[in-house]
Amino acid sequence: MRKQLIEMLEVRKDEMIQIRRYLHENPELSFKEEKTAQYIADYYNGKDVEVQRNVGNGYGIIVTIEGGKPGKTIALRADFDALPIMEETELPFKSKNEGVMHACGHDGHTAYLMILAECLIQLKDQIPGTIKIIHQHAEEVPPGGAKSIVDSGELDDVDNIFGIHLLPIAPAGHVGYHSGFSFAGRSYFKLGIQGVGGHGSSPHRANDAIVAGSYFVTAVQTIISRRLNPFDAGVITIGSFDGKGTFNVIKDRVELEGDIRYMKVETKGIIEKEVRRIVSGIEVEFGVQCELTYTSDYPPLYNDTEVTAAVKENLENANDPDIKEVEEYPMMSPSDDFAYYLEKIPGCYFYIGCTPKGMEKPFFNHHPKFDIDEDSLIVAAKSVGYVVCGYYGLE
Amino acid sequence: MRKQLIEMLEVRKDEMIQIRRYLHENPELSFKEEKTAQYIADYYNGKDVEVQRNVGNGYGIIVTIEGGKPGKTIALRADFDALPIMEETELPFKSKNEGVMHACGHDGHTAYLMILAECLIQLKDQIPGTIKIIHQHAEEVPPGGAKSIVDSGELDDVDNIFGIHLLPIAPAGHVGYHSGFSFAGRSYFKLGIQGVGGHGSSPHRANDAIVAGSYFVTAVQTIISRRLNPFDAGVITIGSFDGKGTFNVIKDRVELEGDIRYMKVETKGIIEKEVRRIVSGIEVEFGVQCELTYTSDYPPLYNDTEVTAAVKENLENANDPDIKEVEEYPMMSPSDDFAYYLEKIPGCYFYIGCTPKGMEKPFFNHHPKFDIDEDSLIVAAKSVGYVVCGYYGLE
Amino acid sequence: MRKQLIEMLEVRKDEMIQIRRYLHENPELSFKEEKTAQYIADYYNGKDVEVQRNVGNGYGIIVTIEGGKPGKTIALRADFDALPIMEETELPFKSKNEGVMHACGHDGHTAYLMILAECLIQLKDQIPGTIKIIHQHAEEVPPGGAKSIVDSGELDDVDNIFGIHLLPIAPAGHVGYHSGFSFAGRSYFKLGIQGVGGHGSSPHRANDAIVAGSYFVTAVQTIISRRLNPFDAGVITIGSFDGKGTFNVIKDRVELEGDIRYMKVETKGIIEKEVRRIVSGIEVEFGVQCELTYTSDYPPLYNDTEVTAAVKENLENANDPDIKEVEEYPMMSPSDDFAYYLEKIPGCYFYIGCTPKGMEKPFFNHHPKFDIDEDSLIVAAKSVGYVVCGYYGLE
Amino acid sequence: MRKQLIEMLEVRKDEMIQIRRYLHENPELSFKEEKTAQYIADYYNGKDVEVQRNVGNGYGIIVTIEGGKPGKTIALRADFDALPIMEETELPFKSKNEGVMHACGHDGHTAYLMILAECLIQLKDQIPGTIKIIHQHAEEVPPGGAKSIVDSGELDDVDNIFGIHLLPIAPAGHVGYHSGFSFAGRSYFKLGIQGVGGHGSSPHRANDAIVAGSYFVTAVQTIISRRLNPFDAGVITIGSFDGKGTFNVIKDRVELEGDIRYMKVETKGIIEKEVRRIVSGIEVEFGVQCELTYTSDYPPLYNDTEVTAAVKENLENANDPDIKEVEEYPMMSPSDDFAYYLEKIPGCYFYIGCTPKGMEKPFFNHHPKFDIDEDSLIVAAKSVGYVVCGYYGLE
Repeated sequence: MRKQLIEMLEVRKDEMIQIRRYLHENPELSFKEEKTAQYIADYYNGKDVEVQRNVGNGYGIIVTIEGGKPGKTIALRADFDALPIMEETELPFKSKNEGVMHACGHDGHTAYLMILAECLIQLKDQIPGTIKIIHQHAEEVPPGGAKSIVDSGELDDVDNIFGIHLLPIAPAGHVGYHSGFSFAGRSYFKLGIQGVGGHGSSPHRANDAIVAGSYFVTAVQTIISRRLNPFDAGVITIGSFDGKGTFNVIKDRVELEGDIRYMKVETKGIIEKEVRRIVSGIEVEFGVQCELTYTSDYPPLYNDTEVTAAVKENLENANDPDIKEVEEYPMMSPSDDFAYYLEKIPGCYFYIGCTPKGMEKPFFNHHPKFDIDEDSLIVAAKSVGYVVCGYYGLE
Repeated sequence: MRKQLIEMLEVRKDEMIQIRRYLHENPELSFKEEKTAQYIADYYNGKDVEVQRNVGNGYGIIVTIEGGKPGKTIALRADFDALPIMEETELPFKSKNEGVMHACGHDGHTAYLMILAECLIQLKDQIPGTIKIIHQHAEEVPPGGAKSIVDSGELDDVDNIFGIHLLPIAPAGHVGYHSGFSFAGRSYFKLGIQGVGGHGSSPHRANDAIVAGSYFVTAVQTIISRRLNPFDAGVITIGSFDGKGTFNVIKDRVELEGDIRYMKVETKGIIEKEVRRIVSGIEVEFGVQCELTYTSDYPPLYNDTEVTAAVKENLENANDPDIKEVEEYPMMSPSDDFAYYLEKIPGCYFYIGCTPKGMEKPFFNHHPKFDIDEDSLIVAAKSVGYVVCGYYGLE
Repeated sequence: MRKQLIEMLEVRKDEMIQIRRYLHENPELSFKEEKTAQYIADYYNGKDVEVQRNVGNGYGIIVTIEGGKPGKTIALRADFDALPIMEETELPFKSKNEGVMHACGHDGHTAYLMILAECLIQLKDQIPGTIKIIHQHAEEVPPGGAKSIVDSGELDDVDNIFGIHLLPIAPAGHVGYHSGFSFAGRSYFKLGIQGVGGHGSSPHRANDAIVAGSYFVTAVQTIISRRLNPFDAGVITIGSFDGKGTFNVIKDRVELEGDIRYMKVETKGIIEKEVRRIVSGIEVEFGVQCELTYTSDYPPLYNDTEVTAAVKENLENANDPDIKEVEEYPMMSPSDDFAYYLEKIPGCYFYIGCTPKGMEKPFFNHHPKFDIDEDSLIVAAKSVGYVVCGYYGLE
Repeated sequence: MRKQLIEMLEVRKDEMIQIRRYLHENPELSFKEEKTAQYIADYYNGKDVEVQRNVGNGYGIIVTIEGGKPGKTIALRADFDALPIMEETELPFKSKNEGVMHACGHDGHTAYLMILAECLIQLKDQIPGTIKIIHQHAEEVPPGGAKSIVDSGELDDVDNIFGIHLLPIAPAGHVGYHSGFSFAGRSYFKLGIQGVGGHGSSPHRANDAIVAGSYFVTAVQTIISRRLNPFDAGVITIGSFDGKGTFNVIKDRVELEGDIRYMKVETKGIIEKEVRRIVSGIEVEFGVQCELTYTSDYPPLYNDTEVTAAVKENLENANDPDIKEVEEYPMMSPSDDFAYYLEKIPGCYFYIGCTPKGMEKPFFNHHPKFDIDEDSLIVAAKSVGYVVCGYYGLE
């Protein structure tokens, strides 16, 4: 069956690209992917599978492919939400939804998995087990979709889980893996700083929230630079400083949002303690009132060592001209709610290179000019295909 | 005629309040006061005056009242634009135009002057000269309406000009004046800081514009604290820090807007030089690209000493129970484009107290909770009425 | 007697310069002016006056010249302490006391007054009253010498007091005065910031006091820029940031010293409150312990309006080619403990121009290259001479 | 011989402590260790070894112990310089040299090695090779002593090298090792910031170097927090901010010193580039002149994997009650110029626990209260003794 599957995928390479482009042109924000979910569900319409919709806390879909023989159950997951970014590419299929963009490759994840799923459906009689295809909503915005899908109980019978992420850190054809802790854990916060508004000419009658917010941002830098063990990875990004106002009115309030990454629980705790400390300090120092909502979401992502070793072996044994390199990658600072699946189900989340051809310095995920080499889609489909075949011992 | 005028005004006190409330409920932003201008123009409809519309660079209106006898020409001005502030009062006539608010008292300015103008029209046969009523658009946003009205040539024959501003620094009944330089000059700037966006977890692949913007705000404080002569007044307010984004995306760009006040041309120059210097420094320090648009607008406002002395005398001689105190006020840091009229035409811009009754710490102009004691409207109308009568020697 | 005195002073012009150069070459720090005081005392040795030494809290000297006739008592004061500044001039009589410098002109003050005093002693039979010559120690370091001399009671019988300060804001021959509040009041503080020391490579095991101190300095700028009424003069100078350490040891403690100026008691209060607030905020924000000693010392200096008017008149009537201009000067931000005398005794403290010849941008007082035009010494001596003669009605 | 050596060391345990206390009480700064070197040299006086003095760029000493049989040459190194830290312990043998302190354990290093060396001298007939004892000066201050000793050629015949460092991260009895890159590389810089001095009350006539220096410190934090890959260790410590001055004089100049750590050459380059960038930015932003001296010194320290494996084995096989634990330690951020030896000679630098008994949170090296459990000295001596015996196959 392995050869058959790979050939079927090759035939449908262009179709993957078309799906990806359609999704790219019609991105939807996390938890608001109504049309995307409908599009995916329509795709499975009339196919011999069970399709569950609205799984978890949003538009999540689980497609269950019952194999022809009894055996283990695995899950394959692709996420389908987009980001609130104004696209700056000049692609002909650029986002039509202004201010929303598939800037993280989820369009590609979904496209390859839809085609792979259909091929597996066609070949399902040969499969000794059950495959659950997870089309997941809302990966980008905590609490995310993954945890709610786990909590739904629909995956309780799953033995192992697999997923991939497109990353432009290697060209199409390169596949990367990392055993053990691989992606960072994440916390985030919202901070409202309330001062007192007033006329721009009379600072003494007001209390400038923009000034307090700016000093907060400079102080926060010291958490990473002075509070962490230099060998412990940590990141604090203030991704939003909402202080839009009028030049001649002293701003009474600003709203900040922060994103925190770490590889250790200890680091997570230190950062939270120090952010809280600085917020308290800013309140005293500038006489403002702060409201801080601090939430820990995606945990560090842990790839099971045995499962990852098997993935590596299956990929290395593929002998497929589309899969040119299988490499070990370092730990990385992004987070992914795939980590929630891995807390419960041993599995492996691995990486598919997608640097656009001829681009020496590709734009990274979440950049308004992020793009992929679409040849990476067939690499993704085949890689997961080889992993599935290897898992079930299908030659 | 003086007594006649004052009695007419007293009768129409409630009407002033109604007009003010209507305007308050229907505020329009600077340069967009289409309905407000129509409302004012409609008011003069059928009255025996010349009404010029769309004077200057916006919806400015000049109503010319030809007196029954030849004589000097004076102008009286009230501004009618509102501010982009979300009103936080609980007035029954709170703004219906969400996010726009009459937070500077221009509703009151316009209301008193409409009533005063109509009274003067009725009495015009007794007036030995011409009175031009200026209903001015766009005081709040540079380049403002005043300069364009001066440049239109329509005031070339005006000998003297008068105006008032409602200020909640004294209760209704108090009238203030200051001779010579009285209100600050103003510059403003827009600063775009362009970094490089990226994934929140990978600061080394991006260049965080929020961080650069925050350090800019902290550095700017040193201009006032360390670069100016401590005896020279100066203010820099960063009234807008537009860095709204998504918590897990490193912000590629922020836009700041600044408001600058000064009483001396020398101070204006120092501040501009130092803002430019800090912007250049931030570019080097953080490797960002900055676009700075720096504009000088309203000059310091100069009240002619002789005209102001006459205003003071006329008010002190009013012996009107509504005008309880006539006081000298200090120089103040707000700016007003009335300064442009005064550059060409000797005149006096003076202040009408309007602290809401029972409020010990009133909200200052431009605060979302700014309000006035509506008794101040009759004080304004009478005060300007006394000044006009005194000017023309009308008993 | 006036003509006689002025002629005597002219003859001794070079002597003044010699004394000034001797003092310049041998500067002593505040409260340590032992040799300077001895030098001055020796000068009066054998002269027909009473010399009191060690007046007040240091080496203060009062020389009492009893006039030949009864009458009012006046005091003339010159200060004689130097500053902890490393002199950078190339004067042949440059400081021999390394790190100590007469960088504020007190050498000149003392020199002119010694000569003037001797002339007055010689003419004392003609004087209808008593003149107390105050050679004051420790003007530069609070609590200063002046307050202690006032508190000693030795000036209880003084009717009026006079003094001058050399200022390089005008050339020699220019004399300036200001009526009412003229020099700023001053507060000062010492701030110890205690963190935790450690190895330079392990910030997480330490708590860096240099980082906390630096953020304090940047935060303090907002007091002047955002907390004061822009029309109220205020200055905060952190003149000392003592964080000398070793590059590879995280500094456990830094010591800062600050100097505060203001013209109003209200401003003094706001600044103190805000400094204390920021210190409390820094403690919370950085987890350091702060020890703050905040002291108000020299009050704003108030020149009696009547006495100042008389000084102005006496100088304008001098008709002396050495006194070329008598001008009104603005309020100034320096402080002087002469203010303490003026709190108790009506008087006038005025200014003697001393810009070195040919220097367009002179170095201001307290600069390591500060210097004076020595022609200013005879101007000082004559000016005070005219004031004394005018005071006693001596032609 | 192994048993003999260990017994000899046990007998002399107290002597080690006495030597350590003597050294502790008489610390000398790097490159100024004249008396310390004399003390050590005197110790070897009359012993049957060659003693070379003034090796390298300071007071370095090499003691060559020729074994009784031919064989390999190894070197054992202990450093003997102290730090410019004011000791805050209450030890009876507290530093007598005010402001200088053995706060890094070099007193202990030297003490154990002197005793071990003497024992080895006594047993040298049994040793099949040559042992070079390096008493090294100036480890704390770059360029350090190690590089100059390597450059002297005196170690050209050395096959392998060993050394230990006392670290209070484990109690006495614990020995740690790390294979491969183990200690950080280090750069350092001196930065002079030249502004313009002036009177504390007149910031506009001066240019405050303390303000510029403080903003520099806050900006530097962003290099670690925003410019480095979060997985790459990096540290920047500003260990000295020399801005001591007088509260009422605006400081014209400050001098800063910085310490930089990194594990990768790439990180070293990024930090240097960014420090230079921020310095350039500060120059523009504050109009100051900066002089930056930036030097890379100690490289990352690399323990040879084979040699380290042998060390581990020898220690684990010791079966000595004094050596309770042999553990792998993580990479650490300190630097040591032992790295220079290891660039040329394969070897191993390992760690001896020394947390004072009963102390839960010991003070780390370079803290003014740093102290050791003196039982660690016998652990150090025995550990190195076992390594030497194992190396030469001496039972």
